[in-house]
Amino acid sequence: MYEGLKGFREFYPEEQSARAEVAATLEAVAARYGFREIATPALERTEMYVDKSGEEIVEELYHFEDKGGRDVAMTPELTPTVARMVVGKGQELSKPIKWVSTRPFWRYEQVQQGRFREFYQTNVDVFGSAEPEADAEVLAFAADALTELGLTGDDFEFRVSHRDILGGLVRALADDPEAVDTGAAIRAVDKRAKVGDAEYLGLLSDAGLDRETAREFDDLIAGVETVDDLDAVAEAGGDDVTAAVENLRNVLAAADDFGAAEFCKLSLTTARGLDYYTGVVFECFDSTGEVSRSVFGGGRYDDLIESFGGQPTPAVGVAPGHETLALLCQRAGVWPDEELTTDYFVLTVGDTRSEAAAIARDLRDLGHVVETDVADRSFGAQMGYADSINAETVVIVGEQDLANDEVTIKDMGSGDQTTVPVDEFPPEEGRPTYEDYE
Amino acid sequence: MYEGLKGFREFYPEEQSARAEVAATLEAVAARYGFREIATPALERTEMYVDKSGEEIVEELYHFEDKGGRDVAMTPELTPTVARMVVGKGQELSKPIKWVSTRPFWRYEQVQQGRFREFYQTNVDVFGSAEPEADAEVLAFAADALTELGLTGDDFEFRVSHRDILGGLVRALADDPEAVDTGAAIRAVDKRAKVGDAEYLGLLSDAGLDRETAREFDDLIAGVETVDDLDAVAEAGGDDVTAAVENLRNVLAAADDFGAAEFCKLSLTTARGLDYYTGVVFECFDSTGEVSRSVFGGGRYDDLIESFGGQPTPAVGVAPGHETLALLCQRAGVWPDEELTTDYFVLTVGDTRSEAAAIARDLRDLGHVVETDVADRSFGAQMGYADSINAETVVIVGEQDLANDEVTIKDMGSGDQTTVPVDEFPPEEGRPTYEDYE
Repeated sequence: MYEGLKGFREFYPEEQSARAEVAATLEAVAARYGFREIATPALERTEMYVDKSGEEIVEELYHFEDKGGRDVAMTPELTPTVARMVVGKGQELSKPIKWVSTRPFWRYEQVQQGRFREFYQTNVDVFGSAEPEADAEVLAFAADALTELGLTGDDFEFRVSHRDILGGLVRALADDPEAVDTGAAIRAVDKRAKVGDAEYLGLLSDAGLDRETAREFDDLIAGVETVDDLDAVAEAGGDDVTAAVENLRNVLAAADDFGAAEFCKLSLTTARGLDYYTGVVFECFDSTGEVSRSVFGGGRYDDLIESFGGQPTPAVGVAPGHETLALLCQRAGVWPDEELTTDYFVLTVGDTRSEAAAIARDLRDLGHVVETDVADRSFGAQMGYADSINAETVVIVGEQDLANDEVTIKDMGSGDQTTVPVDEFPPEEGRPTYEDYE
Repeated sequence: MYEGLKGFREFYPEEQSARAEVAATLEAVAARYGFREIATPALERTEMYVDKSGEEIVEELYHFEDKGGRDVAMTPELTPTVARMVVGKGQELSKPIKWVSTRPFWRYEQVQQGRFREFYQTNVDVFGSAEPEADAEVLAFAADALTELGLTGDDFEFRVSHRDILGGLVRALADDPEAVDTGAAIRAVDKRAKVGDAEYLGLLSDAGLDRETAREFDDLIAGVETVDDLDAVAEAGGDDVTAAVENLRNVLAAADDFGAAEFCKLSLTTARGLDYYTGVVFECFDSTGEVSRSVFGGGRYDDLIESFGGQPTPAVGVAPGHETLALLCQRAGVWPDEELTTDYFVLTVGDTRSEAAAIARDLRDLGHVVETDVADRSFGAQMGYADSINAETVVIVGEQDLANDEVTIKDMGSGDQTTVPVDEFPPEEGRPTYEDYE
């Protein structure tokens, strides 16, 4: 007997029905916003990831030399691929470009709750707009998707931050702005909640902030709870930070118009770990804290397309990960039922296959989910199977009933049944059940 | 600028919309038959494929050693994975098991028309029934899926054959049944249409049939056009072949009840290349021959689950490949339009973002595809963008109109427009267009 690989999962129908329902909800909401589905390859050249994220990314990649001698990697994320696609079509694409896709990605990581080596994301991106409305639309999509899943403002919050506020503050506060490593300082902020105070201050110190300045920096960013609190940050940070604060305010105002503001919470201690973010960034958290990890995140990455050889093209996106989203939905009690649903099982008794098949076909033509016997089973075995697939109605096509030009309609909930003239079943429309004939 | 890998494709929205529509049709038809969606990993242990298909399969695999020292392969097909899943749950699963899934697979092959290194399939399988109704249901699913795509009996045919007829005939005709390699003979039949007559007879000779017997064998299988013609085959083949002929007749009779017989054509020169097939096999072909390759195929593989360590579990399935299916649909003129569709673009003129956003949200709540400006564009640029996404209706939200409590509804086909009271738009249901207000 063969076993699957650690961190790779197979989903049987019950669980998959819930997962597919959640994915379909994300995709339907994205479609209503005019995000257009794309499809992308599972393999790319490894160098694309190394160039973007540095040599250390290789440790996380499923990469290998293919039979043509190319170093290739199973895609660990979507962003480099869509950046390549944007660059590839260049001016042909009408801007803004709004794309969505759902698919698995792969990273060789430690497996833990909500983290697997094969994991699924729905990526939503806008390319070609630097305006706050683009950031706000991404936030609004995410908020609508979560509320459409049944989550409420009591369940989740988007912690919204701005990379240029963080970077600008670091430079403004540092004794020597040239000597400070803003990227390292931002990565320190990203680790703030995960490491102890001493380690956090140590990381900021490594980035070039002395202990006192690091404390000052942290007091400033941790002190922001409302939009008004941003005034003190702008004052301490100078022109660059003032401009970033203005941008953040504009994004939140647009998010208010777009219906997402109620889910947004200012949080300058949120930073996002990836180096390519440039402006507004945000992370979705479980409001109750029961799911302790970030559920997913997103933000602006205005420089990536240009770094891939394209025209300067601002970009902003979000990528809900299905595994952590499932944890949140389960915690909130809105995870879909993991069960099969079946409208009809058409049961044969005796030599009635032809008539039963005709009824099954008619019901399918009406769009219903219909099974019939394909295993030559007894009445009891067919009934047991119909029960196992949660058939709502069983249509019993028996030789004796047919001799009277009838079939029997059985409600599987109550067990009630009645006969119906075969030439009246199914009617030309609708989804007839026992109640329609009792 | 980075390039994608040969044989791997990215799909931009226009092309993807057509591909997604075709995939959704296959999945919807499968759902109506009660096939249940599963999801499966992209990586498996390489040994699973080697054990099943022999060491030579490795030449086609994207395989490598992972960071844990396991030899792993990107899945080249679904069947071994679903076999593993059936074995894994064993008796827990209610039989018959009916599963469907759509996803990419990977093979390192020569790239040609309709063949890529990353390719998509919708796999549909029934496990746990040896009855002819199971074979017929798989044929009926495939026929319904193709007709739902707009194809007709003039466009495609299922060439139906039976591995046990071919194997039984070979053994019955051979001078020494013990010395004949039936697997090799069946593979020779599979190559019949692709190689010359001499090479074909040579392959049969390699399998242990002398030239005269090979010719006799070929005359028998090539002579079958109708069910009645099977009598001669049964007579020549003895008991095993007679039983297989009976099974094939039963499958075709069930396919007739299930509505698929009109698409089925007896063709004993069809064999399918894979060794694991055991009974009825079939291939879908373009009736006009313009698509010269088999579009897809399927058949019975009753021994595979047991060979994977499970209880004996008969199985039958089909796996439409999306690339060749696209060629057939394009040849027949039923490939969906490769274009974007958009119900509304909500256009802002002046400082009307808040009102425009509210209208866009209301329209999305009704389920429509709605874009609005997220790039602070001019009237003309917004109109150009609305045209580029094929917006059917543009809702112009202008400061002057709003002063009169109105918005303007513009039909993008005709260019006609009219004003509508803003508190009447959108109505509580429906998809209002210019015609509703003119």
